[in-house]
Amino acid sequence: MKDSDKAAVGRPRNKGGRPRAYDPEATLETATALLWERGLANCSLDEIARAAGINRPSLNAGFGDKRAIYLKAAARFAEMLRDRLAEALAAPDLQDAIRRALICVLDIYSPSADPERAMGCFIFCTAPAETSDRVVRQMLHQAVQDLDSLYIDRVTNAQESGELSAKCNAKALGKMLAACQQSLAMRARSGVNRKELATYVDDVIALLDHFK
Amino acid sequence: MKDSDKAAVGRPRNKGGRPRAYDPEATLETATALLWERGLANCSLDEIARAAGINRPSLNAGFGDKRAIYLKAAARFAEMLRDRLAEALAAPDLQDAIRRALICVLDIYSPSADPERAMGCFIFCTAPAETSDRVVRQMLHQAVQDLDSLYIDRVTNAQESGELSAKCNAKALGKMLAACQQSLAMRARSGVNRKELATYVDDVIALLDHFK
Repeated sequence: MKDSDKAAVGRPRNKGGRPRAYDPEATLETATALLWERGLANCSLDEIARAAGINRPSLNAGFGDKRAIYLKAAARFAEMLRDRLAEALAAPDLQDAIRRALICVLDIYSPSADPERAMGCFIFCTAPAETSDRVVRQMLHQAVQDLDSLYIDRVTNAQESGELSAKCNAKALGKMLAACQQSLAMRARSGVNRKELATYVDDVIALLDHFK
Repeated sequence: MKDSDKAAVGRPRNKGGRPRAYDPEATLETATALLWERGLANCSLDEIARAAGINRPSLNAGFGDKRAIYLKAAARFAEMLRDRLAEALAAPDLQDAIRRALICVLDIYSPSADPERAMGCFIFCTAPAETSDRVVRQMLHQAVQDLDSLYIDRVTNAQESGELSAKCNAKALGKMLAACQQSLAMRARSGVNRKELATYVDDVIALLDHFK
């Protein structure tokens, strides 16, 4: 989510000149912010409707029930994160690429110096509490696999171009980097401040020296 | 939680000869199992009381409200995990110690071959959805810090005894191992099967070769 999107969370958008009762994109943004902060089970459909400034029947008509809104918000978050990570990881130098990726993630997980505003990852910090729902569990599983793939592919490329030792297990190192991102989510969510999280990112990048 | 404890979850204990209406330890075990599977917000006090086979006033009198039960269950889980990790990490060889620690964690996070029974970590998989409660967030923060300390201390010892390169940043490597454990929790919770999780553990151990 860009800063401009963040700022828009909580107030209904009005793109055209005529008043609009229901803007699906703005509604989903507002719902995402609320579900992200509080978790699925701690939000009611009424609270989401109120935050979005629309009535509950409109919300139901547009998205279905609360679980459907959550899954839609998760899919949107996953797509946004995947796109931004892929862009960051495209940098030619491995350590620079990983740094860009983790800083991009840090900007999403902990956007300011205030740990009170650090929400961690929408998926990794809210879905695990909901895995008694098989569909949520499947969504979490897919998110874990997708993250692994992004890092494994990048590390494999670096090894093929000779940037990493041939002795290194690229798949294992890729998964370790994904683990570091998951941990970043957990650390941000627990209230570790941004400066300390940035040091954690620096440390992960420096550890990569050992795989050259 | 030991296997014998696991087996006891769900049925009230009766240590003495006389029937007991309320066994705090058995009740806490049952509450832990339910809260672990479903998350705090998806369990009601009535459900916990029903699962424990006691009435709600007894539960309230013994533990307070649902949040108090959750925090007590989390404290008990954290203590159990810390004790077992400390024991595993006491092994003299670093890689053996880390393997013992992660296998011990795997036995707790995913106790059988059935991924349906894999609950991940009680704290890391349920607390992040509840961090709008400051006390839960503080508990999660402490769990993150404690885990870091255990691994950092072990890695630092290994470096002091010459098992690891002097060039290695022991604090960074310790945090990376803690991240791998957090990721193991996430992976188990998402339904990754035990065999694949065991391979993940093997891979983490093998990566440590690069820091010698």
